[in-house]
Amino acid sequence: MAKVLVVYHSKTGNTEKMAQLVADGAEAAGADVKLRTPDDTTLEDLQEADAILLGSPTYYGHSAAAMRALLERSVRLHGKLEGKVGGAFSSSHNIGGGNETTVLDLIHALLIHGMIVQGFADGDHYGPVSIGAPDERVSEQARRFGEKNARLAAKLTGS
Amino acid sequence: MAKVLVVYHSKTGNTEKMAQLVADGAEAAGADVKLRTPDDTTLEDLQEADAILLGSPTYYGHSAAAMRALLERSVRLHGKLEGKVGGAFSSSHNIGGGNETTVLDLIHALLIHGMIVQGFADGDHYGPVSIGAPDERVSEQARRFGEKNARLAAKLTGS
Amino acid sequence: MAKVLVVYHSKTGNTEKMAQLVADGAEAAGADVKLRTPDDTTLEDLQEADAILLGSPTYYGHSAAAMRALLERSVRLHGKLEGKVGGAFSSSHNIGGGNETTVLDLIHALLIHGMIVQGFADGDHYGPVSIGAPDERVSEQARRFGEKNARLAAKLTGS
Amino acid sequence: MAKVLVVYHSKTGNTEKMAQLVADGAEAAGADVKLRTPDDTTLEDLQEADAILLGSPTYYGHSAAAMRALLERSVRLHGKLEGKVGGAFSSSHNIGGGNETTVLDLIHALLIHGMIVQGFADGDHYGPVSIGAPDERVSEQARRFGEKNARLAAKLTGS
Repeated sequence: MAKVLVVYHSKTGNTEKMAQLVADGAEAAGADVKLRTPDDTTLEDLQEADAILLGSPTYYGHSAAAMRALLERSVRLHGKLEGKVGGAFSSSHNIGGGNETTVLDLIHALLIHGMIVQGFADGDHYGPVSIGAPDERVSEQARRFGEKNARLAAKLTGS
Repeated sequence: MAKVLVVYHSKTGNTEKMAQLVADGAEAAGADVKLRTPDDTTLEDLQEADAILLGSPTYYGHSAAAMRALLERSVRLHGKLEGKVGGAFSSSHNIGGGNETTVLDLIHALLIHGMIVQGFADGDHYGPVSIGAPDERVSEQARRFGEKNARLAAKLTGS
Repeated sequence: MAKVLVVYHSKTGNTEKMAQLVADGAEAAGADVKLRTPDDTTLEDLQEADAILLGSPTYYGHSAAAMRALLERSVRLHGKLEGKVGGAFSSSHNIGGGNETTVLDLIHALLIHGMIVQGFADGDHYGPVSIGAPDERVSEQARRFGEKNARLAAKLTGS
Repeated sequence: MAKVLVVYHSKTGNTEKMAQLVADGAEAAGADVKLRTPDDTTLEDLQEADAILLGSPTYYGHSAAAMRALLERSVRLHGKLEGKVGGAFSSSHNIGGGNETTVLDLIHALLIHGMIVQGFADGDHYGPVSIGAPDERVSEQARRFGEKNARLAAKLTGS
């Protein structure tokens, strides 16, 4: 059973809703799922997980400072997250409002940890993006995102 | 009177419609506007312009090869476009389908030429993005984009 | 006389050295320069400046959380920084260690504020990058970066 | 035995040298390796591979038009490359000369194909970057890059 950690920061509740949908998808794929905010996430949580999925609102084309603070704390684990699965998702106000750069912002940090990131041929390619509250399209993508990452983690850990 | 060059590549006609709206906006701001496809654009066109605005569909998170081919030809002008105004816009199928990375792809090339790029506090921040055919929201942004870049070019050239 | 604000975060002193060189370059171009850390920077400092130049070490492919915290505070000024000049620089350990994505990370935030960013045809295209302490190559680029941005700000403000 | 396809475009020979080192690393990990230029790469080559590793010089912050032309042809395989391993490397003239954005440019296209990309905790995080001809540091990274991607492909295909 793959261990999936979903870490989200949310102000309006939109990213939280997405995080819940991601968690649902991962559970549907048989994963053991933890849902956390960045402040509640310990370095041990990060180390124990087989997959780490990060969600943040888009603030000025990038993830929230709370999420960046977790990523800075995570530097102490340098090299220890290598080979784990990583992914990112975001909610935003505008279509061209920086949501893709936010997802990529988080993906860059995961790659720098030596993690493994998968893209999506259909839908939002780098990770789910919601404009405002998640609608039907986004909900389906968020669930599928959780599911696919849980499956990849299970495959890589042989569980 | 600032000289504005709008170069677009279009397959379905959506980017072409955006290019026309951008040109309209630039003309409304008093600019002398040329509308070109990448293949029809000469190095002289690039050198004569005070502002160069590039539009491309999103193909796999990036601009069309036709546009990249123009950018490669433009390398011969290295240093000679410095200080000109640059901007980019894109049309795409999906919200998270790589449209922002396409606009940024083009902006990077413009910055590497030493050009000057302005962002937008409202709407699509890096440049106009259309999902499918340009709707009312996108049309207004495309016009405003043409207008603001024409104004900036006029200011910088003292015209 | 253009007002240039240089904001830097530094741990090892390398980014601070770069910031001093950037400030020197801006002063050589006749600007009135303020040098600040993110924590010491008030929203008034941002509003008063004609050019805002941000420097941060590369932490995992992105700017320091202290810098992101300033950018989050700056959201209250949304729309009020439009038309100002912006730029970014970074110091890093590795050549491919995320220094360009850090500079672009900051440039994205500046563009989202509606600011105006210029690239460089020669040297480091998006903004100065130092691997470790600034050497002769980087020192020259940092000074030129300060100078060019100060000149652009003077031109745009008519000062 | 994992099948690794290394596609490179080279003008000065530097990217070609990197490609050879990447191929050596993949072979050392037991992979069956093909080395191709973009023009010589068929859609069948792409479909047969378990891992696709792309190398390009940095032209204005992005990959060569020859590589983009291959990526455009590859759109016909949309969805059929999902789950394969992908990676990218680049050679460049300048430290801040756009080499990271070139590597990320290629990684974005691979993610949009639904491919799986791994980062590196040590050295060049997104993929190997050479300033000029590959030196000892780069050679070691290029070999390790080939090796790690071959291992990941073997793990995912159960070979």
